[in-house]
Amino acid sequence: MPSYAEVEAGLQMPVALAMETQRAIRRLLPDPVDDDTVLRCIELAMGAPSGGNAQPWEFVVVRDPTVKHQLARLNRQAWSVYRRLGWFRIRREARLRRIVDAVQWQADHFEEIPVVVVVCRRRPVPRLWPWAEATYYGSVFPTVQNLLLAARALGLGGTLTTLPLWSMMLARRTLGLPWNVTPCAVVPLGWPRGAHGPTSRRPVEEVVHLDRFGRRLTRATDGRS
Amino acid sequence: MPSYAEVEAGLQMPVALAMETQRAIRRLLPDPVDDDTVLRCIELAMGAPSGGNAQPWEFVVVRDPTVKHQLARLNRQAWSVYRRLGWFRIRREARLRRIVDAVQWQADHFEEIPVVVVVCRRRPVPRLWPWAEATYYGSVFPTVQNLLLAARALGLGGTLTTLPLWSMMLARRTLGLPWNVTPCAVVPLGWPRGAHGPTSRRPVEEVVHLDRFGRRLTRATDGRS
Repeated sequence: MPSYAEVEAGLQMPVALAMETQRAIRRLLPDPVDDDTVLRCIELAMGAPSGGNAQPWEFVVVRDPTVKHQLARLNRQAWSVYRRLGWFRIRREARLRRIVDAVQWQADHFEEIPVVVVVCRRRPVPRLWPWAEATYYGSVFPTVQNLLLAARALGLGGTLTTLPLWSMMLARRTLGLPWNVTPCAVVPLGWPRGAHGPTSRRPVEEVVHLDRFGRRLTRATDGRS
Repeated sequence: MPSYAEVEAGLQMPVALAMETQRAIRRLLPDPVDDDTVLRCIELAMGAPSGGNAQPWEFVVVRDPTVKHQLARLNRQAWSVYRRLGWFRIRREARLRRIVDAVQWQADHFEEIPVVVVVCRRRPVPRLWPWAEATYYGSVFPTVQNLLLAARALGLGGTLTTLPLWSMMLARRTLGLPWNVTPCAVVPLGWPRGAHGPTSRRPVEEVVHLDRFGRRLTRATDGRS
């Protein structure tokens, strides 16, 4: 499997291309991913903004089979409930079925994932009002997105999930986290199994409003020309 | 001021360089930013992952002076309280003082910002338990980070703030948002005023743990060599 030196050049990928081709890759090879590759992803993740530039992040890199197995169990517990809750929608939508199949595959093979990065934030979640929570998570998910984009550029498969965190108490115990460190996202990483198609996104015009909700903004020219 | 065609080539910037040089830029010129540039940033923002690929985003592009003034008022209200609460820490830390000066500058000049993008998420915040909230915000802040990285690559200054959202009710009223659309982040965008120095980040080794919290992972070689 490639070492960091062999994949490093991927980080020269144009930023737009990385964003346009990023997709959740859940079917991963069990082959090892070296520390340098993982640490470089985390280093780039740390370029993300945070409130007051506090960088309130802690990254737990899980390789140990026992810890991985515990995360896998938590993941399967949440997934078995979540899948059943979504059963009705899943049956109707082919697009969702493909996602569900991939999540199921990952749940079944979680122990084989070479490295799982758990992104945590210092301080407990402020249980005050929506604004405080948005501010709290706004200092953690940008770093997760950088981690995923860096992984994409290096050729690693990855995805963002929160399923193994359904119980903060059990997740904290599994990872030995103190009470004031909150696990927020789980990113399984590995070399992809098989090829991956393009991503599908809604047209930008559908989700953009001018000044007030519902007032459509359309572009005069093709912005890409 | 440059049109999209003139800055488009910036999106070829290597993804690693964009992450390493991204920083909050709050002192902005009042010069216009064209729709194509803003829409391209949003289009790239939409490359980000979301739970079940639901893409639950709505982007309100604010250019109207009246709406901008209302956001500016909300911003100043939150900032005047927030600044006072942090007074003690600000006085001691030069690093924080510089940030505070920039936030103050932006608060004073908010009405002059050419374009303010408010990133919203469909569905109200699930007030259940931390897991549901992490999952909720995990589908919105990755798109905000893409937006900021795209802005960086195009040479736009931007920052992520939640200050104008301290009151969901007032923010919703200002933007005409229905009850089931939640504003999560505010991104003022404009061409930067003056030059900007490098970013400062903690060493990756300080925030990385192996398998369990507190067990340090250090890299054998310099991963960048």
